[in-house]
Amino acid sequence: MSPAAEGSANRAVVLLSGGLDSATVLAEALREGLECHALSFRYGQRHDAELDAAARVARALGAASHRVIGLELDALGGSALTDARIAVPESPTEGIPVTYVPARNSVFLSLGMGLAEVLEADQLFVGVNAVDYSGYPDCRSVFIEAFESMAALATRRGVEGAPLRVRAPLIRMSKAEIIRRGVELGVDYGLTVSCYQADEAGAACGRCDACRLRRAGFESAGISDPTLYRD
Amino acid sequence: MSPAAEGSANRAVVLLSGGLDSATVLAEALREGLECHALSFRYGQRHDAELDAAARVARALGAASHRVIGLELDALGGSALTDARIAVPESPTEGIPVTYVPARNSVFLSLGMGLAEVLEADQLFVGVNAVDYSGYPDCRSVFIEAFESMAALATRRGVEGAPLRVRAPLIRMSKAEIIRRGVELGVDYGLTVSCYQADEAGAACGRCDACRLRRAGFESAGISDPTLYRD
Repeated sequence: MSPAAEGSANRAVVLLSGGLDSATVLAEALREGLECHALSFRYGQRHDAELDAAARVARALGAASHRVIGLELDALGGSALTDARIAVPESPTEGIPVTYVPARNSVFLSLGMGLAEVLEADQLFVGVNAVDYSGYPDCRSVFIEAFESMAALATRRGVEGAPLRVRAPLIRMSKAEIIRRGVELGVDYGLTVSCYQADEAGAACGRCDACRLRRAGFESAGISDPTLYRD
Repeated sequence: MSPAAEGSANRAVVLLSGGLDSATVLAEALREGLECHALSFRYGQRHDAELDAAARVARALGAASHRVIGLELDALGGSALTDARIAVPESPTEGIPVTYVPARNSVFLSLGMGLAEVLEADQLFVGVNAVDYSGYPDCRSVFIEAFESMAALATRRGVEGAPLRVRAPLIRMSKAEIIRRGVELGVDYGLTVSCYQADEAGAACGRCDACRLRRAGFESAGISDPTLYRD
């Protein structure tokens, strides 16, 4: 039986940023035999390189569909990722980093929940990770669990007794573990872009938090890093 | 002391649709002496009349600011409010109506939560109502409570021990009670637009669910209805 013929119990929405983590999550969900619908956001990030990467990853791994929703998250201000006036830090910082975008994961998960409802998908996958991003409040397990409880009350399928499952399979994995798992699953990380300030071609700065974590992850995994660095 | 000088404990974000309910909520929050920042959404609704109404209401009542965030909620499909191929019903329906937009309140509240974090506001007001909109899963008290619990874990201020309060002061009121309260507070309902299919000038159809509820509310309150109906 094909995945589509099995209906909604076999269907998932996967949030796909174009980075390393969410590509691994998509591969993981596909490995489970799920019909995966990828969802990305154009939210005022500084460049489109990550959306191009998301499209490449969705196609290469075999997602059933890929949507991009535009969202003026930059209208809120307050983050280095969406406000050109705030510099992206190039050395480690303490506490909640300025690259944190207020409410971003809540907004993205809510939109993913909406798509899951429309597609009658019963699972929503997200690549949040509490190890490397411990400074982001909305990358913690307690947050994901609270979101799932909220989702059970927010939607038609929750009211009808089949609440959405929200899955964050990477949440307790190190970057090296994620990379090893992705390589096992056949992910080509050369297609992904993690850098907070990638150029239009997707070349990475090599210096921001995301680049440092990614580079250290490949080193620690003992896997050669396919990332294109611009210097 | 001016409201602004009292700082974040006196600041609120108010979701403002341009309709009757959220105008009443804004008036209620202002009556409490709060510095109110109104937030509206351009989300693929069929007309801009309600956004024009939101701007009029924010100005007339004295909001400290009014923002409109664009959001391609129509990309999800599945609702008569954002999909021109689904007809807006003109007679009462059973169950969850087709005018329900999947995940809309979760998305709007998440964005409100993000603005509250950036502005350091400690309250978020929303005009949801469980009496008239009992068919919408995300208009129920249990949903609002679950959202508030999620918000406490999602944001910087939650982590720092000052969780956002999510307030839905109309949730148990009838339309007539809301209208009576709004008139007491000085709301000019002639500025508001409730109709699901208002024309560009804001004139109402008089037949959709929202029009029927609104008209019946004025009748039941014994207050003359200032709505401009187009026929």
